[in-house]
Order: sequence, then structure tokens, then C-alpha cells
Amino acid sequence: MIESKSISKVKLLKIHSNGKNEEATDFIAIEEPLEIRVEYGKIENRQTANLTVTMRTPGCDDELAAGFLFSEGIIDNFDEIDSIAHINNFNSFENIILVKLKENVNFNLNKTERHFYTNSSCGVCGKTSIDAIKQVKKTNHKSIDNLKIDKEIFYTLPTKLLEKQSIFENTGGLHASALFDCNGNLITIKEDVGRHNALDKLLGYCLKNKLMPLDKYIILLSGRASFELIQKAALADAKIIASIGAPSSLAIQTAIEFDISYLGFLSSSKFNIYTAIHRIKS
Amino acid sequence: MIESKSISKVKLLKIHSNGKNEEATDFIAIEEPLEIRVEYGKIENRQTANLTVTMRTPGCDDELAAGFLFSEGIIDNFDEIDSIAHINNFNSFENIILVKLKENVNFNLNKTERHFYTNSSCGVCGKTSIDAIKQVKKTNHKSIDNLKIDKEIFYTLPTKLLEKQSIFENTGGLHASALFDCNGNLITIKEDVGRHNALDKLLGYCLKNKLMPLDKYIILLSGRASFELIQKAALADAKIIASIGAPSSLAIQTAIEFDISYLGFLSSSKFNIYTAIHRIKS
Repeated sequence: MIESKSISKVKLLKIHSNGKNEEATDFIAIEEPLEIRVEYGKIENRQTANLTVTMRTPGCDDELAAGFLFSEGIIDNFDEIDSIAHINNFNSFENIILVKLKENVNFNLNKTERHFYTNSSCGVCGKTSIDAIKQVKKTNHKSIDNLKIDKEIFYTLPTKLLEKQSIFENTGGLHASALFDCNGNLITIKEDVGRHNALDKLLGYCLKNKLMPLDKYIILLSGRASFELIQKAALADAKIIASIGAPSSLAIQTAIEFDISYLGFLSSSKFNIYTAIHRIKS
Repeated sequence: MIESKSISKVKLLKIHSNGKNEEATDFIAIEEPLEIRVEYGKIENRQTANLTVTMRTPGCDDELAAGFLFSEGIIDNFDEIDSIAHINNFNSFENIILVKLKENVNFNLNKTERHFYTNSSCGVCGKTSIDAIKQVKKTNHKSIDNLKIDKEIFYTLPTKLLEKQSIFENTGGLHASALFDCNGNLITIKEDVGRHNALDKLLGYCLKNKLMPLDKYIILLSGRASFELIQKAALADAKIIASIGAPSSLAIQTAIEFDISYLGFLSSSKFNIYTAIHRIKS
């Protein structure tokens, strides 16, 4: 293992109950803020807005930014982006990223600010929050929805995730989101100290590689499933989401609302199906 | 186990690789939005502002709100609060809480909004972010700082945490923050779907029960330690923080900056010390 922009080394003292204390060097996941800015408007009147700052693990910042814009309903296609690049300023190399939107992209900063509130707020009740997702979706993809996946495929996913979760393996400190095809082949995995960032990176990757809508794929979450994660996946038209950890009440409610098959506590020998059982051949 | 405002029941299908599928009922952690509002100003000109909305597990909402106001540098003493109560509206029972500040509390909404940005943003580099905490701290407590805790005490904490982590035990879905005294006696534990909420609840409890500053206590985090968690604990003058999970780079950097003894990967037989080793008798 070598240091990278996602991992750094730290000195520490390992304390054991058997009395054998030892000085050691260990790898830790890097956590750094990323400010996401957007440049928008007609060529004669370009403007820049600071959209958000998120505490993230450096790496795949372009995908994180693109995925964030997608999650917030600002873009639904990678072609709406002219360029994504870090801005270097004196203090913080690679901690600011600027997404230049194409001229024809309709971006309303006020609406976005309102949405940030609504998004994290969900309009102060689950129902309203789910309505808010529908409002934010730019396009509604109509899929055939005849997906049916054999249960045996799901048992293979946790091992595949762990094998590729390189930063977690070395630091114990990262969440992951992974995309698999219907046969359980890993397409990609994204890691981050923030679970929402890991999923935004994945969605950004999917946008960039023209994999959207995600209704023919499986999304796997390394930890627990919260409202926010199911909401983001729903925006990408995901129909099957599995998590290694437990779901929250609102995660399940959101999965029901969007007719998503949600599987929790996935291991190599069992899992729970909470919603839309018809897509799982058991 | 019974349903409560923190836990609800859900029906699901348990799928086993041995072919024995079974319908089951399980407990899940409730996740619901809480809007925190603050009423402030002189009696002749009282105003109300919506501070934030957080996805939380219902329960201890008053402590969550008080802890949040503390974390944001709006109050540093429970006596600054006149009352905390839910507002019932048509759609969302107990999802809005109003904190009425006393007349003499100096509250500047603009400054707070700027801080929300700075807080999550950290001024776009770790160093600046840590400076931002210092700015937000209302008072600087001077402690004697002669705390020294035997390593044996730490080994006992994970078991005590698990014993009391009632919601997690039943749902697998919650983060916890706990407060222990120097002898390893549990003072209280707070649980939430959001790790920052669990710590805000703990800080709110400490405010309410006049336990601040926390420089004579141990804070234990059930999961990983991020910048945000160390930052919140630093505001409460915590000097010893342990986590069951891994730290991030910025968590360690923040602990160094505030001379906090930070212990990671705590188990019943070992732990790592990353910073300020002098407070641990090993």
C-alpha cells in the first residue's frame, strides 16, 4: 500500500491488554473539504455560484461534482457539462472544483438553494420529501421493468465489494457504493468518508459513461441505507438496491414509493427483502 | 422489544442460501426529518428563523436541538434557552421543534448562516476550518488538564456501550455517542441514524445537566471519527475521545490542534492512540 490522495500515513501507539505496546504506522482515509462551484448562463453573461462544500475523500472529484449536480436535479446528462476542473488557489490545492455548464442548460440558483433546503429537509415530513424528489427529477425515464435477478447472484456481491474496496481494506475508514450488472459483474466501485459522496461519485461515473438510467443494474451500499441514499438512487431510476447494513424507516418508505426492490443485511448466505419482491427469484 | 418513536416494525422476507425463505417481522430505526427553529430578540421584536432540518431518529429532540445550537456557537449554556417544544402542524407531528432563546441572548442569523457554510465547508481547507471552530466558540474554558486515565478503563467501554445501545441492538441501524466519567462509569448514551445527531443529543444532554465543560469525561463514538465529530466535541472542551471505528485524516488533525487525546479502533483488548498520549496510562 502506498500513500495517495485518498490515503495517508499516520504514526500511532498500539496498546494491547497483554501489555505489549508498540509504536506503529498505519494508513488512514483522507478527509478534506471540496467546494463545488458552478458556472452557468449565456456566453455574454456567465456567472459563478458556490453550490456546496462537502467533506470528502479526494479522488474522482469530477464524478463527485457531476453526481452531486445530478442528485440535485441540475443536470441529467453529462453532455450538459462543458468542463469540470479543479481551481487551484493559494491555500487549498484541489479543494475547489468548478463545473462549467453549457450555455443552454437552464440553471436557477434560487431554485437550487430552495431545493438544498427541501432536500435535506424533505419538507419536514417523509411524504413531502418524496414528492420533492419527483419535482427535482428533470426527466422521467419509462422503462420496461421486467428485471428479475436470481438470489444466488446477490450472495456473491459482498465478497466482490470487499475485494475491490481497497481504501477501506487499508484504513477501515470508508463507505463504498458499487454498481453491478444483472449477472453480478462489478462495473465500478467508489469510496468516500461520506456515504452520500460515495454514491454521488458512482452516479457521476454512470453519467460520464452513459450508463443512465440504472434500471438494469444493481446498486450495492457498503453500510446502512438511509433516506438520502435511496433518494439519490431513485433519481437515477435504480430498481434494485442492496445494502450490507440495516435500512432506516424512511429508506424503506422511499423504496416503496419508487417501486425499488430493496435488500438489506446482504451477506454471502442470506439477505432480507423489504420491498418489491417480484424482481428477486428466490 | 416494543415499538416506540425511535423504532418501528416492518414486514420482510428473509432469504437464505439453504433455501429456507421465511416471512418475518423486524424492527427498524425510524428516520424522520426534524426542523429546528429558533425564536430570538427583544420582547418587543421577537423573530423566528428556521435554522436547519436534519434527518434524525425521533427521541431526545430537545437535547438534539440544544446540542445543535451549542455546536453552532449560538448558545453555550442551557440557561440561555427559555423553552424548547415541538410545534404540531397538520402534516408532521413532532417534526418541528422551536427553541425560544432568552431576550438577552445575542443571536445573529446572518452570522449563523455564514457559519453553517463555513462549518460544513471548513473554509475549504483543514487549517481554516479549525480556525472557524475557534471563532465559533463563545467562551474559552481554562481547565487544569491533569487528566490521566488507565488503559484498563478503556477496554471496558465497548461492552458497556453495546449493553446500552438498545435501538442498535434491535435494528442494527444506529450510531451512538456515549459519555463516561474518568472511572469508566457510563453517564449516558444517545443514539441516532445520523452520527452528528447522536453527538448533538449527547452535548444537549450535557448542557441540560450542567456537565459542561467535558474535560473530565470520556466521549465514546460507536463508529468512525470524522472531522465533524471531533469538532463538536472540541467545542465542549472534551479532552479524551475514543471511537470503535477508524479515524479520518482531518479527525486526527483536529484532535492535534485542540490537544485532544484521540483513541481509535477501541475494543475490549486493544486500541490505538493517535494523539496526546500523555493522558493515557499504558
